[in-house]
Amino acid sequence: MEKVVLIICDGLGDIPVKGKTPLQAARKPHIDALARDGECGLMHVLGTGVIPGSDTAHLQLLGYEPFLYYNGRGVFEALGAGIKLREGDVALRCNLGTVDKRMKVIDRRAGRIRTEEAARFGKSLGNITIDGVRVIFRQSVEHRGAIVLRGEDISPNITATDPHKTGPILRAMPLDKTNEAKRTARIINEFTRLSHKRLSAHPLNIKRKKEGKPVANIVLTRGASIFEKAPPMRKLYGISAACVAGGALYKGVARYIGMDVLDVKGATGTKDTDLVAKAKAAKKALRTHDFVFLHIKATDSLGHDGDFKGKTKMIEKIDKIIPLIRKTGAHIILTADHSTPVVLKRHSVHPVPILAYGKFVRPDRVSKFDERECATGGMGHIKGRELMPLIISLLGKARMFGS
Amino acid sequence: MEKVVLIICDGLGDIPVKGKTPLQAARKPHIDALARDGECGLMHVLGTGVIPGSDTAHLQLLGYEPFLYYNGRGVFEALGAGIKLREGDVALRCNLGTVDKRMKVIDRRAGRIRTEEAARFGKSLGNITIDGVRVIFRQSVEHRGAIVLRGEDISPNITATDPHKTGPILRAMPLDKTNEAKRTARIINEFTRLSHKRLSAHPLNIKRKKEGKPVANIVLTRGASIFEKAPPMRKLYGISAACVAGGALYKGVARYIGMDVLDVKGATGTKDTDLVAKAKAAKKALRTHDFVFLHIKATDSLGHDGDFKGKTKMIEKIDKIIPLIRKTGAHIILTADHSTPVVLKRHSVHPVPILAYGKFVRPDRVSKFDERECATGGMGHIKGRELMPLIISLLGKARMFGS
Repeated sequence: MEKVVLIICDGLGDIPVKGKTPLQAARKPHIDALARDGECGLMHVLGTGVIPGSDTAHLQLLGYEPFLYYNGRGVFEALGAGIKLREGDVALRCNLGTVDKRMKVIDRRAGRIRTEEAARFGKSLGNITIDGVRVIFRQSVEHRGAIVLRGEDISPNITATDPHKTGPILRAMPLDKTNEAKRTARIINEFTRLSHKRLSAHPLNIKRKKEGKPVANIVLTRGASIFEKAPPMRKLYGISAACVAGGALYKGVARYIGMDVLDVKGATGTKDTDLVAKAKAAKKALRTHDFVFLHIKATDSLGHDGDFKGKTKMIEKIDKIIPLIRKTGAHIILTADHSTPVVLKRHSVHPVPILAYGKFVRPDRVSKFDERECATGGMGHIKGRELMPLIISLLGKARMFGS
Repeated sequence: MEKVVLIICDGLGDIPVKGKTPLQAARKPHIDALARDGECGLMHVLGTGVIPGSDTAHLQLLGYEPFLYYNGRGVFEALGAGIKLREGDVALRCNLGTVDKRMKVIDRRAGRIRTEEAARFGKSLGNITIDGVRVIFRQSVEHRGAIVLRGEDISPNITATDPHKTGPILRAMPLDKTNEAKRTARIINEFTRLSHKRLSAHPLNIKRKKEGKPVANIVLTRGASIFEKAPPMRKLYGISAACVAGGALYKGVARYIGMDVLDVKGATGTKDTDLVAKAKAAKKALRTHDFVFLHIKATDSLGHDGDFKGKTKMIEKIDKIIPLIRKTGAHIILTADHSTPVVLKRHSVHPVPILAYGKFVRPDRVSKFDERECATGGMGHIKGRELMPLIISLLGKARMFGS
């Protein structure tokens, strides 16, 4: 039985700083050995000239056309935070933030409140029903979380309350003229009011205020989207699939498409994540699954921070877990969901390097894994939608057309 | 007048065994000279992740979208066997096989009966009409052949009687609820019964039985398909085209699209085929045709057999006819319909190497024709459907769009 591990180093692609990209600057003998023994290429994840979002890019790479399956981020954040969604639920991404007396947002992240503290507010926001619609709140990492509206006559077509910068909190507004959108906006505005009332009275906030810390006294919402079931990977592609990830979004995408999401202690989605624990979890998952998706977030975060050295070091850390995965005998694909160049501090259109290694892979002349070398690889330039057919063929499950 | 010879070495693409593919291991100075003086690339015949069948791949490479023009193999086998088809005919691929007294198939190929012997059964199976439908049988090579149903109210939507392994012969069953499908299944089942009765009584079988050889006492059918005329190449592409091939399937595809199929003595579709005779026939055909398709089957068969040395030697044999073709001054395209890696012994998804040589070709940096070198060629990665536009342009017949 063939197996495939897909390692996505988020935002890995880059453009040179003083002549070198982080991939070119990093010492990464194990990744380069995979390139030497395998086949490389460049991948345009969502097509030429499109800057991929992390959500859409992951859907595309995992074989789900974002044009069909993406209708906003809320659903993935909610699934990632562990809320079990039902068909028709409206999910929103949210932050715990700080507002002053005049409802002006003075800190969108309540001082990047620690995950453990933020978790304590959950109870205050439980058991809320507004106009017959249940509102489910779940915190995920630090100030981040999701809310879900469950009930009749609701719509995802509403605006955000999060102003995305300091300034007056926004009122949720309907984006179309339906009663459902108007009603949903009213419910969110009422929930916002309630969240402020309940959180302000929370003992932890009273304590934080005394300590001079920003209070987490408001829930700011954005990214409303409706949950519609997607065919699970087992059905769409006939494969069993597992996900090892730290970030809620990636777990959410994986749950959305029916992957088994593994709980890995120490997988934080930050640069301090326990990569060895993740690699070991991936190795274990290969025993029971055809396909394992291993997500590493920090390369993207360090790109957003403009931290060239940090991104380079993170690549060197990733290199160290490669032997553990290579030893499993599984095919390995190593790539990214998009480029996050450190000089740009944002996602960019640059295609990402990709390598495939294993029994069914035909080696090319590339022996170093970076943006420049991969451009001459045997895989050529591929689109993100070609990745899943490649994975299926490495699993020995490609179909013949004709006879 | 420009000319093009398209040489398709069936199943030529491969993956390395001990570091080398057959193309990399073969000594092939003339082919490499074409690569050096021409342009190379890799071709995904039916697109990424699709394993090409031989029938669909050839349709695609010759400029006929298989999604439009392919509806089963029977038609091509019947045309290849020399049956002249009429619109609405239902054609099936068939084998002469051996059944025991309880109608259990004990040899699907009647001991791979020789072509000359098998031909003698044709008369027994001639002149059969069942329920007003004429049944035309034609043997091609060894145990292989085709039958054609001609009449009103028939359908290709029926199952095979060939069990594809030893075991009870299957009954043809309708694949839909139409009366046409039910009726056609009945006709095939009656023909099967008749073939058993007539063949069992054949003097040659009585002789074979005495000699202890498997008798050819049944016709096993599969691959039913309906004949619908395709626009001939002359009309679709404005070119005159000829085919030099041994295998019935390839002749059948060529006839389907209106090519002139040349009879070449010694063209057998096996590793013992007379390549020089085929090259000479191609050379002769160039005098009267714009485009000559030269098919060589054995590279595929040797891949299916897992015979690395044999495939390598076959490539070296092909190399020897290149000067003869090069001297004609025609453009040469050398490629494959799909990969048949010797380690896999089956068709695979791996893109095939392709080279183009001649007056209108812009040379690149590739000077050896193999899978790894072609990946860096000037042609880049192309799809199978891009081959015919390339041929048209080499013929000097490409059109300008705009002014």
